[in-house]
Amino acid sequence: MAGSSFGTIFKLSTFGESHGPAIGGVIEGVPVNISLNIEEIQNELNRRKPGQSAIVTQRKESDSVQILSGIFEGKTTGTPIGFVIINEDQNPKDYSHIKDSYRPSHADFTYDKKYGNRDYRGGGRSSARETVSRVVAGAIAKQILGNIGIDIVAYVDQVGSIRLGNNIDYNEIDNNPVRCPNKDIANEMEAFIKSIKKEGDTIGGSVRCEINHLPPGLGEPVFDKLHAELGKAMLSINAVKGFEYGSGFNAIQMRGSDHNDVFNPDGSTQTNHSGGIQGGISNGMPVTMRIAFKPVATIVMDQDSIDNKGDMVKVTGKGRHDPCVVPRAVPIVEAMAAITILDFYLRNKTIQL
Amino acid sequence: MAGSSFGTIFKLSTFGESHGPAIGGVIEGVPVNISLNIEEIQNELNRRKPGQSAIVTQRKESDSVQILSGIFEGKTTGTPIGFVIINEDQNPKDYSHIKDSYRPSHADFTYDKKYGNRDYRGGGRSSARETVSRVVAGAIAKQILGNIGIDIVAYVDQVGSIRLGNNIDYNEIDNNPVRCPNKDIANEMEAFIKSIKKEGDTIGGSVRCEINHLPPGLGEPVFDKLHAELGKAMLSINAVKGFEYGSGFNAIQMRGSDHNDVFNPDGSTQTNHSGGIQGGISNGMPVTMRIAFKPVATIVMDQDSIDNKGDMVKVTGKGRHDPCVVPRAVPIVEAMAAITILDFYLRNKTIQL
Amino acid sequence: MAGSSFGTIFKLSTFGESHGPAIGGVIEGVPVNISLNIEEIQNELNRRKPGQSAIVTQRKESDSVQILSGIFEGKTTGTPIGFVIINEDQNPKDYSHIKDSYRPSHADFTYDKKYGNRDYRGGGRSSARETVSRVVAGAIAKQILGNIGIDIVAYVDQVGSIRLGNNIDYNEIDNNPVRCPNKDIANEMEAFIKSIKKEGDTIGGSVRCEINHLPPGLGEPVFDKLHAELGKAMLSINAVKGFEYGSGFNAIQMRGSDHNDVFNPDGSTQTNHSGGIQGGISNGMPVTMRIAFKPVATIVMDQDSIDNKGDMVKVTGKGRHDPCVVPRAVPIVEAMAAITILDFYLRNKTIQL
Amino acid sequence: MAGSSFGTIFKLSTFGESHGPAIGGVIEGVPVNISLNIEEIQNELNRRKPGQSAIVTQRKESDSVQILSGIFEGKTTGTPIGFVIINEDQNPKDYSHIKDSYRPSHADFTYDKKYGNRDYRGGGRSSARETVSRVVAGAIAKQILGNIGIDIVAYVDQVGSIRLGNNIDYNEIDNNPVRCPNKDIANEMEAFIKSIKKEGDTIGGSVRCEINHLPPGLGEPVFDKLHAELGKAMLSINAVKGFEYGSGFNAIQMRGSDHNDVFNPDGSTQTNHSGGIQGGISNGMPVTMRIAFKPVATIVMDQDSIDNKGDMVKVTGKGRHDPCVVPRAVPIVEAMAAITILDFYLRNKTIQL
Repeated sequence: MAGSSFGTIFKLSTFGESHGPAIGGVIEGVPVNISLNIEEIQNELNRRKPGQSAIVTQRKESDSVQILSGIFEGKTTGTPIGFVIINEDQNPKDYSHIKDSYRPSHADFTYDKKYGNRDYRGGGRSSARETVSRVVAGAIAKQILGNIGIDIVAYVDQVGSIRLGNNIDYNEIDNNPVRCPNKDIANEMEAFIKSIKKEGDTIGGSVRCEINHLPPGLGEPVFDKLHAELGKAMLSINAVKGFEYGSGFNAIQMRGSDHNDVFNPDGSTQTNHSGGIQGGISNGMPVTMRIAFKPVATIVMDQDSIDNKGDMVKVTGKGRHDPCVVPRAVPIVEAMAAITILDFYLRNKTIQL
Repeated sequence: MAGSSFGTIFKLSTFGESHGPAIGGVIEGVPVNISLNIEEIQNELNRRKPGQSAIVTQRKESDSVQILSGIFEGKTTGTPIGFVIINEDQNPKDYSHIKDSYRPSHADFTYDKKYGNRDYRGGGRSSARETVSRVVAGAIAKQILGNIGIDIVAYVDQVGSIRLGNNIDYNEIDNNPVRCPNKDIANEMEAFIKSIKKEGDTIGGSVRCEINHLPPGLGEPVFDKLHAELGKAMLSINAVKGFEYGSGFNAIQMRGSDHNDVFNPDGSTQTNHSGGIQGGISNGMPVTMRIAFKPVATIVMDQDSIDNKGDMVKVTGKGRHDPCVVPRAVPIVEAMAAITILDFYLRNKTIQL
Repeated sequence: MAGSSFGTIFKLSTFGESHGPAIGGVIEGVPVNISLNIEEIQNELNRRKPGQSAIVTQRKESDSVQILSGIFEGKTTGTPIGFVIINEDQNPKDYSHIKDSYRPSHADFTYDKKYGNRDYRGGGRSSARETVSRVVAGAIAKQILGNIGIDIVAYVDQVGSIRLGNNIDYNEIDNNPVRCPNKDIANEMEAFIKSIKKEGDTIGGSVRCEINHLPPGLGEPVFDKLHAELGKAMLSINAVKGFEYGSGFNAIQMRGSDHNDVFNPDGSTQTNHSGGIQGGISNGMPVTMRIAFKPVATIVMDQDSIDNKGDMVKVTGKGRHDPCVVPRAVPIVEAMAAITILDFYLRNKTIQL
Repeated sequence: MAGSSFGTIFKLSTFGESHGPAIGGVIEGVPVNISLNIEEIQNELNRRKPGQSAIVTQRKESDSVQILSGIFEGKTTGTPIGFVIINEDQNPKDYSHIKDSYRPSHADFTYDKKYGNRDYRGGGRSSARETVSRVVAGAIAKQILGNIGIDIVAYVDQVGSIRLGNNIDYNEIDNNPVRCPNKDIANEMEAFIKSIKKEGDTIGGSVRCEINHLPPGLGEPVFDKLHAELGKAMLSINAVKGFEYGSGFNAIQMRGSDHNDVFNPDGSTQTNHSGGIQGGISNGMPVTMRIAFKPVATIVMDQDSIDNKGDMVKVTGKGRHDPCVVPRAVPIVEAMAAITILDFYLRNKTIQL
């Protein structure tokens, strides 16, 4: 009810503020008897970690996860996995200037209006630091899905007006700090992000995600359509402004005779405007999504704003922030996709006696 | 779990197949002591009804709702509202040709793969006829929200490549069969839809929705952000391919210094790229969304397809279908917005002791 | 949230007031491809029906269920089963005398305090008439469980101070109007209930329920223990005051060395103080429960009471009521047991990948 | 779904095994702006703690709770409270003898059948050590309820055949190690428990719980009746075999004319057979419950049992166990009552617009 849980069977509940003692969560519904590689979980966290390159925030966090339950002798026991990540780089003084002021397009104002008592340090609960818990759960989900051959890949496909295009080399994704699967475009994006950063400004971007080898039949009719839950999963990530799958917004201008995906005899389709989903249920083709991220609201410029009395103030961006969120968003998108898909996979087991 | 429920406190559970005896649902969590106007509920159903104009399906349904519980002497009692709509125009023979065949880009294939037993008549549970139940619950939610001054309006803003633009007259929306708030553009869209229909083809479109006078503080942190639930609500509507709010996909190309919404002293903002939502919580500005619909998959053309043995067949589009879904989608979008907002309004009451 | 739903995967949501147009519900999560016998569902309803014998209420209701969805050509489709039962014998005038008065130990007072607007006719939503929906869902669950060999039986084991004892003939249960599995004791109970009725009074009783051939492994650790959900299921039935399983309240006086159930080599146990459940999970032995029912609050006597202004009034019991609730409670107890067990059976499918 | 969560709005999700690194949980839905006294939380933990007296298990645990989130400058922020309790006294070698054997009437057998992979050390997830998390959440709920004047008290009312009777001194409860509110009876119980312990045996008992100053109107109709959730809450506690409220099992032998609670003009009742609840909703009178606990299954005697191959083995009780569970169960019962009541209090806020 309070919005800190996601999923129905494979279910993540998270807690933690940006500058509190720790971030963490509980994962319920983890299938039993699965070998989990803790190092791989840490690897995913390292992909999201601050300080990993020159184009991301320079906050210092090792983001080491401690697993507290649910695994015995290397294998899941079916009981909840509790975990914590200690917050190391807490410097609350960084944030005393926003104690009573509202940064434009941050959640300071809305949290204050909603709760009246807010941990203002670094955004508190509204900070994207919370996504570290999603990456833990997502890394576990990804490993489990690997056992049944489902794989999930995300990458940056646009930064500002620089687009990826059709020339994609999946091996390139983690070879560059942008996580764009085309070396040349990645270089261009990286240079652009650096120039934006130098100006103290930020820039938007988008991430594509593909889910491959998904069996047909996942997703539920009516409200819990596969793409509806994936949409919610992605829209719940900080800074996301839009979600589309398959033909997406391009479908507006298409005719049915062009848009319909003609079947091959094996049930696959010649085109994939459906994005792997028909009637909310997977059809066995790749699920394709695109997620739009806004430019980060923290900029290193003086901005006009108001305080909690309605008086005009200047807010000066300081602290350590990301000039463009998409490079670090890639593992988060994959995590949310993995959590969503594993949940639907387990839900689907309940339709047969 | 099985996907036929939406909401947490104000919660709709629906049932019914396109060509079964009836469609209906149960609405839990209706606040007590609210006067409900049953005629207004029927009016909303009439806006969604087949046969309302020349540019929609000509199936004949009166779509009369029968309220079976939860209202006593004109006022809600706080107990569940059960309701049914009898299916009148059942001609299952219309569908015998698809008993064993899969129509391209319909849910025939995926339901068959998932369940193995499917009511193929008119799409069964996957039919957009199910949305009649959403309109009932939405009409109730809209009336209740009216008591606290929140209003919701949706309209068509694009059909094919014909766009609405900035010249908007809200009074025009229900004056034309397209539900576009600009008489000239509406005429253009109507003519285009008719020409598409004549060709036996279909066309995509988009709907904009605005929620006005929403108090600040609605929406929950982290996973149940206001726009994440609204996104899920809209993506769960048949034929939807994408969702964006505020600046949406345009944010990709924007800089933080342009995108940030500067506060006025009263807490309102000079721009509304945030779409009325910061950190997943309403800020008191209008919530703005745009929803992309694909062209309807049923076309009056012969199409190559397969049957359930994998043999190639011809599927001939017949029956009565919509050449463009957006005119009838407008009340459905409003309904889903109203259900979502009322649920968040009630959830928000639980954060204070 | 509003309390009208039960279950997680196999999930019943009900609606309807005692004297409204209809009672009904939606069942989600029905496993697909199961043949359902509608007549058997009606048979269960007939076991709960008013007017079935001289020792139950003489209200006239045929209690005919109409299935509106979720079954196609005799088999479940995996989509929700919607159903209604029309209320036939509505004589609201019977209840005008309690419009503003509170009957002692009824829910009149508490509903008024909670909601402020209550359908007072026959108890409205608080009437045990609501259990008709449970019996529909339970009858479906029982049929489905029959496919995997699980059977559920309930019977009356005490009325007032008349106890069943150990001499049990299961074939006798539906041969007498009390539903007690011992002909002689049943006769004694029946005579006693008739004498109580003649006095205008009512009497308490208890029902035992056994679940046989349950596989080991059903139930969830910690909060959703098998007996905890069964307890909730039974306590939610009108007039229930207590629940025990296995050794129950007798365990208070027992020693561990007597109470522990010693294993046989095949995993069965020599005694069954555990009532088929250890640590909240079934162990393969019969699950045994006992449920205590209070005497019905409606008595045909003048009683002192108050009205909604706090003034003293006389409430005269009239109308048609049950002198003892347990004979008609038997099918309701079985229904709630079946719904609970099927839900746990389906939940258990999600623990393996 | 996996059973480790309790509550709907005020919701506890727990994790942790008896001999893993830590036990803990996440509490969602904590109302905002409440001052919390951390010491009081620790006091409640101390009441449940092992080693607190000669009649409980001598395992050494400080049971110090660490709060990781959700509180800022001493007050709740409305965001989830995450917490951990480190397991200190882990001596897994104590349990190597049961690695492959099933202790009679423990959950060893059922967890093995359900999961196939079980952390056998000290019962793992099935250990009553899990209840430490309930006490943390319960202590928080109790403090919050204190703000609105609701208080909850539990005490031991029977050990073996020694009953409390009507002579109750609430101030005595925590003055004796049994937590029985009568000094003489408490002494008798203590002596009896010591003698049972000397024999290596265990004994059952029961706990009464009273909830005072509950406003009328809490609880939901139909399935989520106040006593149904309280029943589930109590039955989910380790070793519980039965639950009754108000007149409980005594109601079986009562007549309606005796059982009905006659109203006073102020809405209170002259008797309280209803146990403060009518139709599942509180009526403002004290809510009274009684919970039956079985004798602990761990006894210091050789017992015949089987191993996981079905071979006969001797299981020798060793380690440190409670000869009677009820003294330490008292704070757990209070905790579960507090969690349940606070949840219903918050749910009730959603019925009015």
